Amino acid sequence: MKNFVFHNPTKILFGKYTIRSIGDETAAFGKTALLVYGQGSIKNNGIYDQVTKSLQDAGVTIIEHGGVQSNPVLSHVHQGIALAKENKVDVIIAVGGGSVLDSAKAIAAGALVEHDVWKFFTGKKSVKDTLPLTCVLTLAASGSEMNSAMVITNEATKQKFVSANKHLYPKVSILDPTATFSVSPDYTAYGAVDAISHVLEFYFTNQEPYTPVQDRIMEGLVISCMDSCNRILQNPEDYDARADLMWAATLALNGLTGAGLGRISIPMHMIEHSLSALYNVAHGAGLSVVMPGWMAYQAQQTPEIFAQFAERVFGITSGSVETKAAEGIQALLSWFKKVNSPTSLTDLHIPEQDIPMIAENAVALAQVWGMKEYTQEKIEDILKLCV
Amino acid sequence: MKNFVFHNPTKILFGKYTIRSIGDETAAFGKTALLVYGQGSIKNNGIYDQVTKSLQDAGVTIIEHGGVQSNPVLSHVHQGIALAKENKVDVIIAVGGGSVLDSAKAIAAGALVEHDVWKFFTGKKSVKDTLPLTCVLTLAASGSEMNSAMVITNEATKQKFVSANKHLYPKVSILDPTATFSVSPDYTAYGAVDAISHVLEFYFTNQEPYTPVQDRIMEGLVISCMDSCNRILQNPEDYDARADLMWAATLALNGLTGAGLGRISIPMHMIEHSLSALYNVAHGAGLSVVMPGWMAYQAQQTPEIFAQFAERVFGITSGSVETKAAEGIQALLSWFKKVNSPTSLTDLHIPEQDIPMIAENAVALAQVWGMKEYTQEKIEDILKLCV
Repeated sequence: MKNFVFHNPTKILFGKYTIRSIGDETAAFGKTALLVYGQGSIKNNGIYDQVTKSLQDAGVTIIEHGGVQSNPVLSHVHQGIALAKENKVDVIIAVGGGSVLDSAKAIAAGALVEHDVWKFFTGKKSVKDTLPLTCVLTLAASGSEMNSAMVITNEATKQKFVSANKHLYPKVSILDPTATFSVSPDYTAYGAVDAISHVLEFYFTNQEPYTPVQDRIMEGLVISCMDSCNRILQNPEDYDARADLMWAATLALNGLTGAGLGRISIPMHMIEHSLSALYNVAHGAGLSVVMPGWMAYQAQQTPEIFAQFAERVFGITSGSVETKAAEGIQALLSWFKKVNSPTSLTDLHIPEQDIPMIAENAVALAQVWGMKEYTQEKIEDILKLCV
Repeated sequence: MKNFVFHNPTKILFGKYTIRSIGDETAAFGKTALLVYGQGSIKNNGIYDQVTKSLQDAGVTIIEHGGVQSNPVLSHVHQGIALAKENKVDVIIAVGGGSVLDSAKAIAAGALVEHDVWKFFTGKKSVKDTLPLTCVLTLAASGSEMNSAMVITNEATKQKFVSANKHLYPKVSILDPTATFSVSPDYTAYGAVDAISHVLEFYFTNQEPYTPVQDRIMEGLVISCMDSCNRILQNPEDYDARADLMWAATLALNGLTGAGLGRISIPMHMIEHSLSALYNVAHGAGLSVVMPGWMAYQAQQTPEIFAQFAERVFGITSGSVETKAAEGIQALLSWFKKVNSPTSLTDLHIPEQDIPMIAENAVALAQVWGMKEYTQEKIEDILKLCV
C-alpha cells in the first residue's frame, strides 16, 4: 500500500425529506446565495420549489443561475462568476447532477480570483480558496457531491478538462434518493456506468501489487451499482434501489477507493472526454463505448487483475487467467447492453474514419494529465477496439 | 436504507515516515500539549523518541501523561484532566492504541468542563466541545483513531461504558503501519478480532431488510482483517499486511459501515465489556469468546443474514440456510482458534458458575445502552453457549 492522506470534510445528509434542510445548512454560510441548476427539470419534479421554500424560510436571498447543460461549458461558468461577484454572494448552491455541481465548484473558485477560472484547469493557477458550496443532488453518477474535482468543457478550445483541489469539497451535500425517481432509464444507466467507470479506472490502473482492502471495496461497489440499476429499471420508484445507487456512486469517487493506491490514471475518461467534447455525447454513454475497448487492450498487459475482477464480480471461476479476463470484460459489456447503454462508436453514430481526429484530441488531454504513454497510435488502437 | 448523516472530519496521514509529521500537525492547534501514552512500549520501539523529537522541532511544549492501561480507567483520566487544566494545555496528543486514544478523548472532553467527565458516559451530560486531539496510532484494532466514540472503565463501579459525540473525532490521526511491527502475535490477533467484531455487530443487528452496499463493504472488511492477520502471523514485518489490517480496522468503525443501517446495537460488546470489567480480559480475547456464542443464539432468529455471511465471507454455498449459517459461525470460530484467540470462557479461566454474575453486570449495561431485550435470562443463555 502506498502512503496517502485521506481527509474528506463533506457532510452528507442522506435520505427522504432531507431537501428541506438546504435552507438552514446554507444559511450557516451566509445570507446571499447563487443558486446554480440545469435545464429546468427541477421545476417539473418539484425540487426547485422545495429548495427555494427552504431557502426563503431560512432567510437566504437567492440569485438564480440556471441553464447548466450536460458537459458543462466554460462560458456559462464565466456568467455565473460574474453574477456571484456583482451580487457579492456568500455561498453557492448546486441543485442538480455532476454537471451542475462542477459548474458550481468552478464558480465558487472563480468568484474569489481576478484571473480566468480556466487557468485552474490548465494548471497555470491553483485554487487557494473558494466560496462555500452546498448541494442538493438529483442524479447518482459523478460523485462530485463528495469529492474535490470538477470537469468543465472549454467550447472555444474543444477541451474537456479536470481540476482537483482540497478546497473544492462541498461543505454539505443533501442526497435524497426520491429526487432521482424521475431520472429516465437511459440516464439512470449512464449514471451507473459512470460510477462503475470511476471504480474501474482505479482498479485497473492501480500499480500497487497488493491492495486487498481497496479491491474488495471496489468490487462490492461495482456489484452494487449494477444490481441497483437493474432494480431501478424494473421499478423507477424503488426507493431502496435508488438509495443504493446514489450511495454507491458517491462512495465510488470520494477518495475511499483510491486511498493507498498511489498514482493511478484515468485513461477511459481521457478518451471519453474527447467523445464528449467533439460529439456532445452523454458522459456515461461515451464511457460504456470506451470501457470494453480499453479493458480489452489493457488486459493484454495485466490480465491477472482482469481475471480477479471476472471472478469476484461475475463469479467466473474456470479457465485460464486470460480466458477469465476476457469473459469478465464480455460480462460487463453484456450488462451495458442489457441496460441499453451504447457499446460501440457505431451505436453513437460516430464513423470509424473519425478515429484519428478523436485520438488527436485525446492526446492533448493525455499530455495535460501526464499520461505520456498514451500516444496517438495507442489511442487509435484502443478506439479501433471500440468500433 | 435508513436516513443518515455522514460527516467524518478526521484527517488521516497513512504510511511510512508519517510519524515525523506529528509536530507540525499538532502545532497547528497550539504550543502546549498533553502527551498521553500507555505502559511504555513506545519507549522501547523508538516511537516515543520520534514523536517527542518532531514535537520539539515544531516548538511544542510537552506535558507527559503516560501509564494508560488496557481497559483504561477513569481515575487515570481524572489525573490527565487535572494535568491538562493545571498546565492550560492547548491540545491533547494520543500515542498508542484504542485505550490511549479513548483516555485522550475523555481528557480532551473533561478538560473543558467543571463536572465529572463520567457524566458523559452515564448520559447525564453531553459533550459540547473538546480540546483538539491529534494521534499517532500504534495498534490496529479499535477504530477510535477515526471515530467519535470512547470507552472507559469506572473501577469504583465496575462499569465499562461508551460515550459518543461528534466533537470527539480526532483532528488528525497518523497511521504508520511500521509502528505496529512490534505488536505481539496475540495482540495482533485480538486487534483483528476487535475490528471484525465492530463490523459484525452492525452486520448482524442491522434491521434494515436491504443494505447491499454496506453489506458488501462489511464482508470485504472481514475478509481483509482475517487475511492480513494471517499474513502478519507468518511475518510480523510484512509491511503490506500490517497496512491492510491497520486501514481495514480503521474503516471498520469510522461510520462508513453503519451509514444507512438505522438503529443497530452492540450486544457482543455489551457482554464482553462485563468480562473486561470483571476479569480485566483483553478486549479482543473476550470478544472471540462471546462472538460465536452470541452468533449461534442470534442465528436461530435471523438465519438468512448468517447464511449470507457464510456464503460471501467463507464461500460456503451448499446446504440449507440454517446449515450455512451454522457452518459460517463455525468457520469464524475455527479462524479464532487458528490465530490463538480464546473461544470459550474456559480458555479465559472463567468458571461456568460465574455466568449469573457476569449477566448481572451486563444487564446494567444493556439498560444504559437501551437494549432492554437483553434480560438476565437471555444473557445467561448466550453465555452458556460460550462455555
